[in-house]
Amino acid sequence: MQRERLYLYDTTLRDGQQTQGVQFSTAEKKQITQALDDLGIDYIEGGWPGANPTDSAFFDEAPKTRATMTAFGMTKRAGRSAENDDVLAAVMNAGTSAVCLVGKSHDYHVTAALGISLEENLENIRASVAHLVSQGREALYDAEHFFDGYKANPEYALAACRAALDAGARWVVLCDTNGGAMPSEVRRIVAEVIAAGIPGASLGIHTHNDTENAVACSLAAIEAGARQVQGTLNGLGERCGNANLTTLIPTLLLKQPYADQFDIGVSRQALTGLTKLSRMLDDILNRVPTKQAPYVGASAFAHKAGLHASAILKDPTTYEHIAPELVGNARIIPMSNQAGQSNLRKRLMDAGLEVAKGDPALARILDRIKEREAEGYSYDTAQASFELLAREELGQSTDFFEVKRYKVTVERRKNKYNRMISLSEAVVVVKVDGEKRLSVSESMDETGSDRGPVNALAKALAKDLGRYSAIINDMHLVDFKVRITQGGTEAVTRVIIDSEDGQGRRWSTVGVSANIIDASFEALLDAMRWKLMRDSGALK
Amino acid sequence: MQRERLYLYDTTLRDGQQTQGVQFSTAEKKQITQALDDLGIDYIEGGWPGANPTDSAFFDEAPKTRATMTAFGMTKRAGRSAENDDVLAAVMNAGTSAVCLVGKSHDYHVTAALGISLEENLENIRASVAHLVSQGREALYDAEHFFDGYKANPEYALAACRAALDAGARWVVLCDTNGGAMPSEVRRIVAEVIAAGIPGASLGIHTHNDTENAVACSLAAIEAGARQVQGTLNGLGERCGNANLTTLIPTLLLKQPYADQFDIGVSRQALTGLTKLSRMLDDILNRVPTKQAPYVGASAFAHKAGLHASAILKDPTTYEHIAPELVGNARIIPMSNQAGQSNLRKRLMDAGLEVAKGDPALARILDRIKEREAEGYSYDTAQASFELLAREELGQSTDFFEVKRYKVTVERRKNKYNRMISLSEAVVVVKVDGEKRLSVSESMDETGSDRGPVNALAKALAKDLGRYSAIINDMHLVDFKVRITQGGTEAVTRVIIDSEDGQGRRWSTVGVSANIIDASFEALLDAMRWKLMRDSGALK
Repeated sequence: MQRERLYLYDTTLRDGQQTQGVQFSTAEKKQITQALDDLGIDYIEGGWPGANPTDSAFFDEAPKTRATMTAFGMTKRAGRSAENDDVLAAVMNAGTSAVCLVGKSHDYHVTAALGISLEENLENIRASVAHLVSQGREALYDAEHFFDGYKANPEYALAACRAALDAGARWVVLCDTNGGAMPSEVRRIVAEVIAAGIPGASLGIHTHNDTENAVACSLAAIEAGARQVQGTLNGLGERCGNANLTTLIPTLLLKQPYADQFDIGVSRQALTGLTKLSRMLDDILNRVPTKQAPYVGASAFAHKAGLHASAILKDPTTYEHIAPELVGNARIIPMSNQAGQSNLRKRLMDAGLEVAKGDPALARILDRIKEREAEGYSYDTAQASFELLAREELGQSTDFFEVKRYKVTVERRKNKYNRMISLSEAVVVVKVDGEKRLSVSESMDETGSDRGPVNALAKALAKDLGRYSAIINDMHLVDFKVRITQGGTEAVTRVIIDSEDGQGRRWSTVGVSANIIDASFEALLDAMRWKLMRDSGALK
Repeated sequence: MQRERLYLYDTTLRDGQQTQGVQFSTAEKKQITQALDDLGIDYIEGGWPGANPTDSAFFDEAPKTRATMTAFGMTKRAGRSAENDDVLAAVMNAGTSAVCLVGKSHDYHVTAALGISLEENLENIRASVAHLVSQGREALYDAEHFFDGYKANPEYALAACRAALDAGARWVVLCDTNGGAMPSEVRRIVAEVIAAGIPGASLGIHTHNDTENAVACSLAAIEAGARQVQGTLNGLGERCGNANLTTLIPTLLLKQPYADQFDIGVSRQALTGLTKLSRMLDDILNRVPTKQAPYVGASAFAHKAGLHASAILKDPTTYEHIAPELVGNARIIPMSNQAGQSNLRKRLMDAGLEVAKGDPALARILDRIKEREAEGYSYDTAQASFELLAREELGQSTDFFEVKRYKVTVERRKNKYNRMISLSEAVVVVKVDGEKRLSVSESMDETGSDRGPVNALAKALAKDLGRYSAIINDMHLVDFKVRITQGGTEAVTRVIIDSEDGQGRRWSTVGVSANIIDASFEALLDAMRWKLMRDSGALK
């Protein structure tokens, strides 16, 4: 079979931002753009310039990408020219090489929502696309409500697509805006659109997950001939979300008939970073990753049924449709059995700790992890805290210093100019090499801004650790995540801290307590202890 | 078109229990059974009697149902008769009117996993089903790995199905055990199975969600002729879960071509309880409900995009594929920096604030929301904080009291028994009706456990507010969510607090600061102000 190119269009930064509770900062948009570009996405829709300040700021400083950076907007309004439409002008001003404009294709929406004539709408599409092309931009037309429109008035829906194509659009994207179309309908309608003379090579598909069919509708459209597929990472998006690219990409690369039929921009090598990418997005959004997510979920290759688990040990293909390594995920077989220990040994090895099969320390470590997980700890990402715990059970840990006590004060009051200010102050007492040391720090940074009690505590703790101070000098916090979770019956706070040092090493630690300051302190302590364990060798 | 009966088979209690972290108690199984029966499910698979103690206990005291209660097990093992197989005997002893037995249909699994001959396996299916029928039970055969088996050896896979049917099975259920089949494959293979002489009226479909296609594969099988569909509530199940009945049921009842073609046991009336049922299951499992879940998720009918929200106000069908009331869900129009004025007016109306179109306050409110969102605030869920902000701009707010200052101390040190303990202490100074009041509280609860600095602060703030104290007396915190909106120690912390009062009202407020204590305090203050605004009317 002749292989064909299929294009991936990511709208995480635009439609994904329509998810309830999601609002990316400019810095986050840049980070996600970089990750999408590394993955091999063809088009990155960065947002709607002019519609909100973050999107405009993002385009002002958008990173250079191999992918085609695309600005989103809408077709010009009736009663003015494309050149004189200020909304369209703001989109053009973003200066992207491609522009995607949404426009009506459902007759009812033209007359009822826009209140203009059907011909006026066609003219809006035509003139807008022609304007993009005349400015040297690659033009995409998002045919809003296409499937509903086609069912109501196929001639008009097709006329809208033709208006865009005739004006020079590279792509006409068929949108199931309300998410109500069924896969069979999508397949039939896309085939009819192609039969009506609109080439599949110019057709994109944009679906929503309102009936849990967004992925299936995308696949149906591709099978019918569409050659661009739009979606978002982790299926973010308005209402129930968009088609999930995190699912579609491995399906297109690994499953038949797609794997043999299509070339996509994502390589098998890049695919192994998919699980990490999915978790990174959840981290940015401070969301708990969906365990049951296809391909990338923590449970996606977890085999709980006893019959399954024993067969998996003989041959993983017995109960796995793909090998988890292909997407950077891992197999999980419940901790209670033999496989639990072999999993643990694998993880210890990752930390440089070789432990013999059958070593009684393995069972002790598993027990402690179970205990602590019941209290609310999580060692999925906090590899450094996991290592410290394992070393304790293995008798390979060092007590570098002891924290005798600490005290943090948070105060909010008027300053001498009668303005409310906050200030925190932390005192930490540690014992290092038999000597007691008392340090104090406050929460003001160099600019005079209050950075809060955790910051004051971190500074005080690091301030004087005797001969160890020099070693931790180059470490700093890069991320700080707080989650309220259930520890036993009470809600507790889980803090996960990511640290980095001068060598570019990154490590994660965890702390849990009903008291958020205490949970943060515990994670901070673990971060320092891990760094000292790695780098204090020269002192001994 | 002649309407046909389509049967629903629920396996929440069996395959659903294979979800990582899910283990139902007997009481929970009974509660779920009752709910499934009320919904109108045809078959309820209660578990595998003999395989685990809870399942056996459940069948001992299973409630009487209109639905056919079904016990799950496996076909007899080779080398013994069906009558003498103790595993099968335990299943029969549950005394259910129907029994579903899983058995191999993929030649590789017969020889590699079971290590028996292909003919022995067929004989096991035949003899087991005949045994069920001879005992007066309705027999179902779960053809494990059917689609993979059919692709490898169609003759053998069909022979397994025929063995069951010939022995008297009411249903042969085609299982995509590993979840790797694509919808098009399922459609083609089910059609071929029927063409090979196995009637669609005897065929069931059982899919898994490993490629996010479980619902689509079920629909494809139904379209091809299968007349029983298996799944679980909320898509629980091994790995990525089973086909989600919570999605399939409304799709079959409300969407075409299914609504016109099929009768199912669930009525339109029962369908209005679906959202509640889905949340009840999450409550039992102590899971946070999935906001983006189709039909029943809190975001399923949330319209964040400004353009969508304004059209929804004119006609909800413009951006909704079904009316949310049909499944007992509700429409949400959240605020965000994308929202337009019509979106805003709708939301103000929800808060009981009628504001005329074009009122300049609308623009001021939008501006303030945009400003605050840029600082890290989020009003998507924090409706009470939104209302307070809007009332300020509308000149309809009351200053009940003023916080002059506060101070919180967090201390960790050894107690007199030489054990590390944490204790927080908060002092709050407020001015109420011109009078300064100073309150202090500590973080210990009644059991002597430290509940942290935010708890101490909340108690101190509520302690003495003069004539307002009585009003806020019945409010308490039900949830506390923390998000860091920019990474690093210089993060901005966003706190969202959910409060509840004696009347069962729930409201959400938001606070943002670099200082987590301060962010919490702001959200707490808003929560109290909102409550006072609602209930202080009598005082004036």
